[in-house]
Amino acid sequence: MLPHTRAKFDKDLQRLSRLVAEMGGLAEQQLLHAFKALSERNARLAGEVIGRDCAVDAFHSEMEKESVNIIAQCQPLAVDLRATVSALHISDDLERIGDLAKNVSKRVIEIGLEVIPKSIIRGLEHMTKMVLGQIQEALDSYASRDIDQALAVRNGDQKVDALNNSLFHETLKYMEIDPHHIAVCTHILFCIKNLERIGDHATNIAEMVYYIGTGHVPTDERPKTDTTGFRRRLHS
Amino acid sequence: MLPHTRAKFDKDLQRLSRLVAEMGGLAEQQLLHAFKALSERNARLAGEVIGRDCAVDAFHSEMEKESVNIIAQCQPLAVDLRATVSALHISDDLERIGDLAKNVSKRVIEIGLEVIPKSIIRGLEHMTKMVLGQIQEALDSYASRDIDQALAVRNGDQKVDALNNSLFHETLKYMEIDPHHIAVCTHILFCIKNLERIGDHATNIAEMVYYIGTGHVPTDERPKTDTTGFRRRLHS
Repeated sequence: MLPHTRAKFDKDLQRLSRLVAEMGGLAEQQLLHAFKALSERNARLAGEVIGRDCAVDAFHSEMEKESVNIIAQCQPLAVDLRATVSALHISDDLERIGDLAKNVSKRVIEIGLEVIPKSIIRGLEHMTKMVLGQIQEALDSYASRDIDQALAVRNGDQKVDALNNSLFHETLKYMEIDPHHIAVCTHILFCIKNLERIGDHATNIAEMVYYIGTGHVPTDERPKTDTTGFRRRLHS
Repeated sequence: MLPHTRAKFDKDLQRLSRLVAEMGGLAEQQLLHAFKALSERNARLAGEVIGRDCAVDAFHSEMEKESVNIIAQCQPLAVDLRATVSALHISDDLERIGDLAKNVSKRVIEIGLEVIPKSIIRGLEHMTKMVLGQIQEALDSYASRDIDQALAVRNGDQKVDALNNSLFHETLKYMEIDPHHIAVCTHILFCIKNLERIGDHATNIAEMVYYIGTGHVPTDERPKTDTTGFRRRLHS
């Protein structure tokens, strides 16, 4: 790059990184509030999360516009191109996290004041904290371009999967004990699945950090221990 | 654009459109086979769908690379820029359709030879046909840049939602009648949800066609009639 293009690119990329941080903060907040609304059975708070989703979408549009401008004007190559395209991917993941938080909030409104067992609520709170931690670590690894931290996030997804499995089975058991719980527990199963998917998006962000630094995504199979297929249960 | 850049851009965009068509054909086939595997309880076919998902992902990577090259080399503006960025978005949607077909296939293997009521299998076949039709129409509207056809796809999503609702409730009822069906029916609920989401991706593609032609996305609220929240059932 010519020096003045270089200076412009560095400034533009810095702005893009700031947008990732801001959008990430908003997505985290949406997730936190969605599950606070679920554990408190707070329809007003759920409504606020739904209303605020357009702000997440606005970040997404802005970042796409900025990235395309950078590519057209600076024609970045190698690590510069990877950093630009990765910011776009990360904003995709954050937008999807926002959508999943919105979906949970819609379910909170549907569930209303129906009974959810305390142990399941506690499990959801635990899983939410874990997933929020994964997002924060992934965004930190992006801010500091820390490949080791990014790999730790990727490995940490196994813990999210383990919790997903146990919570999924517990909810199924509760459905089997009393068919009156089936409708509410179906919502809970989808909420658990949403949390698991949010964890996957945190892993995607971490893999982007690895990609920016190295030029390739981690080649070993992504560790996965999802047994919500509950084959064992079906055939036991 | 300078004439030689124009010629290069037109050729590159044509190639991008061809890739959309090819990738779309593959995604359609994956969806068709995943639900064929489900209705036939065919684990071998499900395994083939899972194995072929990497081919969908490869299209996605290729299209991203091509789009970024076009933006950097031709610096397209207005409708040209919209067409380039939209191809990227459409490949995102097709990649997600591939992922959802893969998820259904994994569930087919988990379900094994467990009983699924014939009426639910028939409902799933009907919904799959409807969603496949939506994808085909959306891709046709993209190939011919037909805004009216794109709007018809967008409106057609209501029919998918209606079928989603009735099938969802039927499956829940089946779970309530006999708790032994809960495990298998949970898989079915997620398969139905996946089909509904695939329908949403077809709508996204149609909205991209509208956006290329007009410069904005349709402003009226996307018609939505998802009542799988089954509030009425909970409180009846």
